[in-house]
Amino acid sequence: MSLLVIGTVAFDAIETPFGKTDKIVGGAATYAGLAASYFYDKTKIVAVVGDDFPQSEIADFNAHGIDTEGLQIKKGEKSFFWSGKYHNDMNSRDTLVTELNVLADFDPVIPESYQDCEYLMLGNLTPQIQQTVIKRLKNRPKLIVMDTMNFWMDIAMDDLLETIKLVDVLTINDAEARQLSGEYSLVKAAAKILTMGPKYLIIKKGEHGALLFHEDKIFSASALPLAEVFDPTGAGDTFAGGFIGYMAKVGTISFHNMKNAIIFGSALASFCVEKFGTEKIKNLTEAEVSNRVQQFVQLSAFEIA
Amino acid sequence: MSLLVIGTVAFDAIETPFGKTDKIVGGAATYAGLAASYFYDKTKIVAVVGDDFPQSEIADFNAHGIDTEGLQIKKGEKSFFWSGKYHNDMNSRDTLVTELNVLADFDPVIPESYQDCEYLMLGNLTPQIQQTVIKRLKNRPKLIVMDTMNFWMDIAMDDLLETIKLVDVLTINDAEARQLSGEYSLVKAAAKILTMGPKYLIIKKGEHGALLFHEDKIFSASALPLAEVFDPTGAGDTFAGGFIGYMAKVGTISFHNMKNAIIFGSALASFCVEKFGTEKIKNLTEAEVSNRVQQFVQLSAFEIA
Repeated sequence: MSLLVIGTVAFDAIETPFGKTDKIVGGAATYAGLAASYFYDKTKIVAVVGDDFPQSEIADFNAHGIDTEGLQIKKGEKSFFWSGKYHNDMNSRDTLVTELNVLADFDPVIPESYQDCEYLMLGNLTPQIQQTVIKRLKNRPKLIVMDTMNFWMDIAMDDLLETIKLVDVLTINDAEARQLSGEYSLVKAAAKILTMGPKYLIIKKGEHGALLFHEDKIFSASALPLAEVFDPTGAGDTFAGGFIGYMAKVGTISFHNMKNAIIFGSALASFCVEKFGTEKIKNLTEAEVSNRVQQFVQLSAFEIA
Repeated sequence: MSLLVIGTVAFDAIETPFGKTDKIVGGAATYAGLAASYFYDKTKIVAVVGDDFPQSEIADFNAHGIDTEGLQIKKGEKSFFWSGKYHNDMNSRDTLVTELNVLADFDPVIPESYQDCEYLMLGNLTPQIQQTVIKRLKNRPKLIVMDTMNFWMDIAMDDLLETIKLVDVLTINDAEARQLSGEYSLVKAAAKILTMGPKYLIIKKGEHGALLFHEDKIFSASALPLAEVFDPTGAGDTFAGGFIGYMAKVGTISFHNMKNAIIFGSALASFCVEKFGTEKIKNLTEAEVSNRVQQFVQLSAFEIA
């Protein structure tokens, strides 16, 4: 029994109104894997890097209990690199540089030791690679969560629709839900998307929280209002990793458990944005996580007699 | 003991992607008064209309138990008229016509029978008129709630700041909180605004719900996701009216009660947007209101063991 995370492990260079970084470690699988590791100790990664990727970073994954057997290291090649600049509102950003490098011909090989995977997190990647991973698993996982983004809706909608058919939970943001469904109302958008394959839809709304849709049920989770959002990079991946890590820990797929999983994912994402890159979510204590979760509980609790 | 609502009682002509209306009854005091009447049966209005305002509408107020002794009817004059057109996102709108008419020289006279007012709702109006009402009350009410908007920040900021000093609760939207404070982060914005006078700040975020700030405490209420928002006009006024009506009903000022008041206000606002104008909130049953409140309870409830 294990949790498999696929996605990018990469370098980012980030500029926000609060400062800028040189190349730092980022990538969907990095954030999601680290987040999941706080709840579940059998987390495994499939990803690809070049030999420019520091061994010390791989050691950090292992220190978090993350299995890196499926992390391919391509000799003489360079890791995926993304550079972006956030606007003052921290909600929109410009991509400055995208160098695919090793990602250009990434073939997601699943080590034999990963075939016990019961929980699969498809981090943001081309829908085709996400689909290949599903097909290479001998047994269909108990829970498949897929994250994606507008970029794939723009350039690979058919592949995306095919992959979406195969997953249990789709996580996208509100603009993406509108784009995917052609509906402005998120209720109508969700109803449409729930006919495309996923049984659960999570709509991420950044500072406004997240919505979970399943059959005719809706759960609305608030985001923790923060004095400072330092760097939003990886918040969505961290959310998704925390979500599936918590689900793997509790082991039963239900709307009830997913509501809690969203709170735990949101709590980790709220840490993620407090520092550049993975700095904050690499070094959390159990007490910090559970205190933050309690803040979420307090935040939206009310009692109507 | 009573609840006094001041604001506009007026005509609106509204165009949304779903249709358009002729002149229909609207205005902040109309929406807030009707909303408050569902929770509190001693609601009184101070406002001004022309003699073009239908007697049947005044009879409707009275049928809701609303005292209209303070509703001035100006012979030979016309009621305030606003016309607007909502964009497809229903969050932004263009004002097409504003005819002040009777509002141009509105002098808010408080009938003697209103001097028992313990709860005061200052609906959106010029800050100067709002202030005059506070000064004309012989005893300071137990709770003063003030609604305002960006328009007054643009043209009457000094008056606005003076009036804000005198109130307990300020309700504004997120963009207005940012404008008033000069802070992008709503946490920082709230901290600043809470030094300007109000002890409580409610930031309305439309489809994203509302935030209540008090000292170092935050409550985040979700909005009910709706398949169709037919007409957002009056939703903020309805929210504020429901909020103060509930507070008047429970009678004790506390963060705990305000959290519930926000849920009741949100529930009424969620009805308001389902039809044009006051159509929906004029004709609600007790069962409809309490079922809707239960939907809000379900929407954001989770249990972390």
